[in-house]
Amino acid sequence: MRIGLDIGGTKTDAVALAPDGRELARVRRPSGFGADEVVASADEAVREAVRRAGIGLADVTSVGVGIPGVVEVSTGRVRHAVNLGVADLNLAELLSRRLGAAVLVENDVKAASLGAWHLLGLSGSAALLNVGTGLSAGIVANGRVWRGPRGTAGEIGHVPVDPTGLDCSCGQVGCLETLASGSAIARRWTTDAALPAVDLFDRADAGDDAAIRVRDVFVDGVAQAVRMLVLSVDPETIVVGGGLSALGGRLQDRMREVFDRWAEASAFLASLDLPGRTRLLPSGTPVAAVGAAMLGSVPAFA
Amino acid sequence: MRIGLDIGGTKTDAVALAPDGRELARVRRPSGFGADEVVASADEAVREAVRRAGIGLADVTSVGVGIPGVVEVSTGRVRHAVNLGVADLNLAELLSRRLGAAVLVENDVKAASLGAWHLLGLSGSAALLNVGTGLSAGIVANGRVWRGPRGTAGEIGHVPVDPTGLDCSCGQVGCLETLASGSAIARRWTTDAALPAVDLFDRADAGDDAAIRVRDVFVDGVAQAVRMLVLSVDPETIVVGGGLSALGGRLQDRMREVFDRWAEASAFLASLDLPGRTRLLPSGTPVAAVGAAMLGSVPAFA
Repeated sequence: MRIGLDIGGTKTDAVALAPDGRELARVRRPSGFGADEVVASADEAVREAVRRAGIGLADVTSVGVGIPGVVEVSTGRVRHAVNLGVADLNLAELLSRRLGAAVLVENDVKAASLGAWHLLGLSGSAALLNVGTGLSAGIVANGRVWRGPRGTAGEIGHVPVDPTGLDCSCGQVGCLETLASGSAIARRWTTDAALPAVDLFDRADAGDDAAIRVRDVFVDGVAQAVRMLVLSVDPETIVVGGGLSALGGRLQDRMREVFDRWAEASAFLASLDLPGRTRLLPSGTPVAAVGAAMLGSVPAFA
Repeated sequence: MRIGLDIGGTKTDAVALAPDGRELARVRRPSGFGADEVVASADEAVREAVRRAGIGLADVTSVGVGIPGVVEVSTGRVRHAVNLGVADLNLAELLSRRLGAAVLVENDVKAASLGAWHLLGLSGSAALLNVGTGLSAGIVANGRVWRGPRGTAGEIGHVPVDPTGLDCSCGQVGCLETLASGSAIARRWTTDAALPAVDLFDRADAGDDAAIRVRDVFVDGVAQAVRMLVLSVDPETIVVGGGLSALGGRLQDRMREVFDRWAEASAFLASLDLPGRTRLLPSGTPVAAVGAAMLGSVPAFA
């Protein structure tokens, strides 16, 4: 029995998988804030998943954790998980001591790419483009996560693509993340709406010129991210996930328009078949938790 | 005994390698132009390499060919090798029939990345950034070429990085290749000098403001290419090769200045250690021919 955890900024998801990969239980709990509470809420989520699956902790062969931030996979140490109030945390060691089971830790987007590969039944190579507060991708080749030796594979959100663009939190200018992310929308579209991106798309659909401009910058940025992945890593499939993928068909249709415009201008780009290779992650697919559960069975490579 | 060929726009290099990888002979001949002559000059180069190695064609276990253009590796067919006057050529089949040996064909930059990995004694993952007439990279992970399922892995030259940049031959605008390539220098720096890039760097060193601007655009573009590789593929080592790498220390020193400036502005970029991971290919290293010779022993993956 494998347990997978997805520790997000607000909630922690846990799944229990049978040896054949079948999902036995799924749990959602609020995430703790700060190192101690993150560990405690992770511990509770594992125990509840185990209980719901009708087994005991002794039946757990491995626990995998996906968490935002910089992860040292060899030790399971997490740094700079800002949204969780974690500066530096020996997550694998502390959680393993509480649970009495081996714990593997991976960056959440990298774990999610592995989960997407399995849950969507992909083959060959694929990327999960995570459009959330930030922008990054996880890459899977032949069923294994490609981390790169320094763990920056897929960190395309911090490639500058416009010398006259906005300042990025990373210290550079015009990074792809300043175009194609939730934080990019927040900077460009002022609203009190609970879902700023949905409000933006609604207003653009209603003909608001300012909204159309901001929406088009965002959509073009997501399309640029897909193109950059194809022209660097060349994944067969690019799955668009993350919080903003909840825009669903509205995002997909607009991306399609951008791809079609590019293909008209460039036979080279047309040959890449970006529309045919890009799909949206279906809403509610627990890719990060399932990917985390699989970490032990398919070692990453670099 | 393996033979490796590097068919370039003007010359064809051939190497003969012993089973242990030792170089037994090296040959350079002019490349033919057009499909028939390309095959004929390749055939002659192989025969001469065999002769100089003191063996016979019957001792040749495999012939590998690196050639510019779009290569279908499963069939050894080459398309769009414009500089060689080749639109579409069944190179593997025709050359194999002449030589009576198995022939494998790969894009020259991809083959060169494999050669660089071996000749420079690299380990883990690496990229060869080829700064020639165009701009592209070959990627090697654990000793195998990463092609991607569509063969566009490493084609970062056609990622746009400046919406107000120059038109690119691919139909897009502001591609990295319009900044960091021999053709980019040719468009921006008018000279009758035999080596335009050397003339450009000479004039810039002499204090010519226009030359300094053009040189800085070029160097910044090469540095951008390194950054993009690190933030997408994350190769441990980036080897800068191609015709323009003959600029040597002058290019490396200027790239170092760009990397240092970036690192001052961004702790994130500083953490990537771009200067420590980037090296120039030593002049005259026959990476494409040696990589081509090794094609059969280490299958590519995607």
